[in-house]
Amino acid sequence: MIIILKAQASDADLAALVEEIRRRGYQSHISRGVERTIVGCVGAPEEDKDLLVDHFASFPQVENVVRVLKPYKIVNREFHPEPSCVRIGNVPVGGPGLAVMAGPCSVEDRDQILEVARAVKAAGATILRGGAFKPSTSPYSFQGLGEDGLKLLAEAREATGLPIITEVMDTRDVEQVARYADCLQVGTRNMTNFSLLKELGDLRTPVMLKRGMSSTVEEWLQAAEYIAARGNYQIILCERGIRTFEPQTRNTFDVSAIPTCKELSHLPVVADPSHATGRRSLVPAVAKAAVAAGADGLMIEVHACPERALKDGPQALTPAAFAAFMADLRPLAAACGKALAG
Amino acid sequence: MIIILKAQASDADLAALVEEIRRRGYQSHISRGVERTIVGCVGAPEEDKDLLVDHFASFPQVENVVRVLKPYKIVNREFHPEPSCVRIGNVPVGGPGLAVMAGPCSVEDRDQILEVARAVKAAGATILRGGAFKPSTSPYSFQGLGEDGLKLLAEAREATGLPIITEVMDTRDVEQVARYADCLQVGTRNMTNFSLLKELGDLRTPVMLKRGMSSTVEEWLQAAEYIAARGNYQIILCERGIRTFEPQTRNTFDVSAIPTCKELSHLPVVADPSHATGRRSLVPAVAKAAVAAGADGLMIEVHACPERALKDGPQALTPAAFAAFMADLRPLAAACGKALAG
Amino acid sequence: MIIILKAQASDADLAALVEEIRRRGYQSHISRGVERTIVGCVGAPEEDKDLLVDHFASFPQVENVVRVLKPYKIVNREFHPEPSCVRIGNVPVGGPGLAVMAGPCSVEDRDQILEVARAVKAAGATILRGGAFKPSTSPYSFQGLGEDGLKLLAEAREATGLPIITEVMDTRDVEQVARYADCLQVGTRNMTNFSLLKELGDLRTPVMLKRGMSSTVEEWLQAAEYIAARGNYQIILCERGIRTFEPQTRNTFDVSAIPTCKELSHLPVVADPSHATGRRSLVPAVAKAAVAAGADGLMIEVHACPERALKDGPQALTPAAFAAFMADLRPLAAACGKALAG
Amino acid sequence: MIIILKAQASDADLAALVEEIRRRGYQSHISRGVERTIVGCVGAPEEDKDLLVDHFASFPQVENVVRVLKPYKIVNREFHPEPSCVRIGNVPVGGPGLAVMAGPCSVEDRDQILEVARAVKAAGATILRGGAFKPSTSPYSFQGLGEDGLKLLAEAREATGLPIITEVMDTRDVEQVARYADCLQVGTRNMTNFSLLKELGDLRTPVMLKRGMSSTVEEWLQAAEYIAARGNYQIILCERGIRTFEPQTRNTFDVSAIPTCKELSHLPVVADPSHATGRRSLVPAVAKAAVAAGADGLMIEVHACPERALKDGPQALTPAAFAAFMADLRPLAAACGKALAG
Repeated sequence: MIIILKAQASDADLAALVEEIRRRGYQSHISRGVERTIVGCVGAPEEDKDLLVDHFASFPQVENVVRVLKPYKIVNREFHPEPSCVRIGNVPVGGPGLAVMAGPCSVEDRDQILEVARAVKAAGATILRGGAFKPSTSPYSFQGLGEDGLKLLAEAREATGLPIITEVMDTRDVEQVARYADCLQVGTRNMTNFSLLKELGDLRTPVMLKRGMSSTVEEWLQAAEYIAARGNYQIILCERGIRTFEPQTRNTFDVSAIPTCKELSHLPVVADPSHATGRRSLVPAVAKAAVAAGADGLMIEVHACPERALKDGPQALTPAAFAAFMADLRPLAAACGKALAG
Repeated sequence: MIIILKAQASDADLAALVEEIRRRGYQSHISRGVERTIVGCVGAPEEDKDLLVDHFASFPQVENVVRVLKPYKIVNREFHPEPSCVRIGNVPVGGPGLAVMAGPCSVEDRDQILEVARAVKAAGATILRGGAFKPSTSPYSFQGLGEDGLKLLAEAREATGLPIITEVMDTRDVEQVARYADCLQVGTRNMTNFSLLKELGDLRTPVMLKRGMSSTVEEWLQAAEYIAARGNYQIILCERGIRTFEPQTRNTFDVSAIPTCKELSHLPVVADPSHATGRRSLVPAVAKAAVAAGADGLMIEVHACPERALKDGPQALTPAAFAAFMADLRPLAAACGKALAG
Repeated sequence: MIIILKAQASDADLAALVEEIRRRGYQSHISRGVERTIVGCVGAPEEDKDLLVDHFASFPQVENVVRVLKPYKIVNREFHPEPSCVRIGNVPVGGPGLAVMAGPCSVEDRDQILEVARAVKAAGATILRGGAFKPSTSPYSFQGLGEDGLKLLAEAREATGLPIITEVMDTRDVEQVARYADCLQVGTRNMTNFSLLKELGDLRTPVMLKRGMSSTVEEWLQAAEYIAARGNYQIILCERGIRTFEPQTRNTFDVSAIPTCKELSHLPVVADPSHATGRRSLVPAVAKAAVAAGADGLMIEVHACPERALKDGPQALTPAAFAAFMADLRPLAAACGKALAG
Repeated sequence: MIIILKAQASDADLAALVEEIRRRGYQSHISRGVERTIVGCVGAPEEDKDLLVDHFASFPQVENVVRVLKPYKIVNREFHPEPSCVRIGNVPVGGPGLAVMAGPCSVEDRDQILEVARAVKAAGATILRGGAFKPSTSPYSFQGLGEDGLKLLAEAREATGLPIITEVMDTRDVEQVARYADCLQVGTRNMTNFSLLKELGDLRTPVMLKRGMSSTVEEWLQAAEYIAARGNYQIILCERGIRTFEPQTRNTFDVSAIPTCKELSHLPVVADPSHATGRRSLVPAVAKAAVAAGADGLMIEVHACPERALKDGPQALTPAAFAAFMADLRPLAAACGKALAG
């Protein structure tokens, strides 16, 4: 931690700061420049650092406090240089293959989910997605089928052999969702629902953590650290776009976040071009971009009849469009050294 | 709802759309321009509109769908022209006076909270704030005292007569927090935790809903509608800054949101300059700006010893600085037609 | 244009609006819904529409005015469905091949530019980039060599056969830069320098228009329209990242803007991953993502000795790293149906 | 300047860095922590610092480089603690009074500008604003009357005694505009038009520099430094909103930027609520907020007939609304210790 003093800080201010560092049991290094004095604070344990940054920043003659180390450890690549691989059912995410999660935004009824599950499997998807608990901006919109939806997902897994991933929104539902799902998804609106993250940290089921739409990469990795800190290391990151001023897309897909996360963390990274763009015509191009940037997988919405979908129809591909996309993706994935199933 | 067709849409495309509107039981109005045909859809109930927008946007020859009415009703000023007043304990928020909520970010121990409570009361604050459950970006940071913190808040209320406001983060804690608090606060990180909003909608205790740091005003009002839709109309909005590219402040305080919310909704609006700026030197200026813009109240962090605070020290005012600010605020509030207590 | 009246608008308000539309010589279509009345205005020429939107929005009983058509014509794909191809020297941008523009941020001296030019040519680049006039955030930073830099670029063109692209910042320099360059570049900081755009519109030399870092895609296309409206149709768009809250990268590369521009416009689109990310370790991944998303070309900074560069060293690739990247890009480009030179 | 090495940096990497600092004639301070080594670099002159940050950041084993001092000097309050006062004609901006600049977005004709000038003067405005050269997003929109507009402004000055402020967009127009205007305005779209800033730096006429809509406060102050570095210290800053995701207002007025600029710089700061909000109903509230936050002046659009305005009608106040606003502002300004003229 580096503490930069204001120009007008006196020798007494400096001495008080150094004494405070000593009193807490850490070491200080003083560096006097022409216009500023800088104090390094060495030896504080990780769990105290957030507090210390605030603490020193509250001293009246301190201009700025700079953290030297990253505020996450277990998910930090520095301490775990090999990339992690997480298994959803029997499907590895993070290895040499490309995981493709596909399915409808919401589970609506048995026919719908079975039809889509079969269609995406035939096209090469390896994991089935589908929402039973849906976060809706409006209280008057469809909120999902709840446990009935989970049962239908499990039935679709039986029918196709595809493992399933589905969202959980409430701490009280975690146990129930974990009984059905092969992977629990934290949606963008709950990335900073820390109670939920802790609850998921107590499981040993994989968790896919979507980036908060206004979260920095560092905050996202800290959210992953919340889960890991409780002992659940089966974590997959999912880039799904951030909020910007551009109205052409629902969110702005931050493709640079994929190689950035790979540098900073060992966790696998998946991309969701459907929610990022909100427009089906853009999904194939953005999905391919994600793969070219190094994504370990894709999550894509597919609906047999998008204009009848109860949620997010404009971004869903038809089964035929999804199959065409997968055919198109195959040579690109190969050129990126990633194998597609099927 | 207005549906704009693409230039290349045929008469058959138009007919299919009109038939679909008819089939659903609504009326259509066709308007043919030189370069585009536009179809108005009239008669759909509010609860179907989100779905309908997506539904029509999913038709292949549709370029754009425009909602005509706002996606919230109970909190909409159009249907409730008089401003609402919400009582926290015996303190009105939304009336002719200016409500001032002050206190520490976190409750740390008995002496701390009692000392601050007495100090802020003496300076003119009318409501005591303090966190017992704290959302922290890092899992290694202080997470609050939990129920012990709630008990200390209640003790401070006994000692000073100030009603208390405190944050709730988990659906499972709602009942407990409601037993102690006069007003429950939803933090910025939980504005889209819809399970929590529903749970609070089932209470009749006042709720202060902070704006999500990446939420539009419209989404914020929809979150308020979640609470109202379950029957709890005791809702206060709190502007606390949005996320932008500017690093000088922790968030960018959106002062225009205050008069905007007043136009769109009848709910009272409070401002939190402490979290918005993250820097105590900016708090007084931003607080005064909020009052000048029409805020019904302020929420300000005060800590007897900011450099010892367990959380957010750099933004807390000392009791002396808070008292000086309140003295400074008095003539300004008067010039804005708002009375300050004391 | 669609005009939505407020709920409280009277029949007299409606009549006044319709009369105003008639007085201006256009047609109106009235559509009365249950809660709102909507008026379509048909027949206004493009050049009057901006004014009309403002005009009608200024009426007291108007709630909102929605434009139906896009505010650009010449660059609009609707009126020119075939993609355009622009030639920089003899190198097509927008055809079946992938154009690769490479070189240093700034021209520094003869040896530097010649060495880099030869290196990038050997690795497969087809166009040489290099700045003679440099926009610097600080007035105390290097501002470029001016005409001497242009002469050195011309010398490098002689030596390698690569056509050159370089930035112009001042209306007074346009003529001079156009005497040397095969393509003039408008930087992100000048995308809304409308005087400069008009001046470039009077040339017939190609112009590469970088996206303003806070410009929407629509504003970017309107800036292109400024150039086209004066008769210069040789325009290339260049996505270079937009400003967001994420600090890991200098800007956030908006990969979705590539397919979006392809849908909305017929102009070729190039990507600049160097300025978007500001970090050389991310350049290859983002460059590949851009190609996978459909970019017609890349602009990449290469410097023989990045740590000696007078500007933007942290984002420049060494010649060796650039050559490795090009080798890596070749199969990806092929999988995307794009040929690389060499 | 502080250079943080990566965890894996060797002693040889450290030695190479220290040698490079020595070679350039500066001093180094080494601070070894448990997990990172940090090197302070002392003694570099301001004009080399941008380059040095990039230079050291380009070393392969460097993780981060932190600047200790601000990248602007002349406009920095640290070196000039007293606030500056700039005179537009005979009207001080930055002293104990509140400067009020009012007038139409564009000068349209003699009657229009004279009528508005008289009306705003009667209501208490002290400076007349009006555009002769207009930056328009669309090439098909009104671009201003040019020199004819300047002449009409000068005539309005004759008639009312109000000094005039008007925008300049092109380096080639600076001399002409300076012949007519008492203050030249740089618009948000030209804040990073560095050629224009340099040209204005060679004048001794006051310049009002609007914040770029995507510029940080630090970049804004660096733009001011461009003007100051050429010798023109008559600079006024104008906050006019930044670009965010919120669509209710055209831009998000960053009220915190007012006290922030006052802390960082000695320059006067003015607020433009008309362009920030784009909606006349919000202008009074935001204007008052700016004054409460410490602004030295306001710039407000007034048009005798907003629905006939050739530009930005929806944000203009009528003369009557402006007069009502000024009456309302008077007690607030007094409570803030600022006198209003008249």
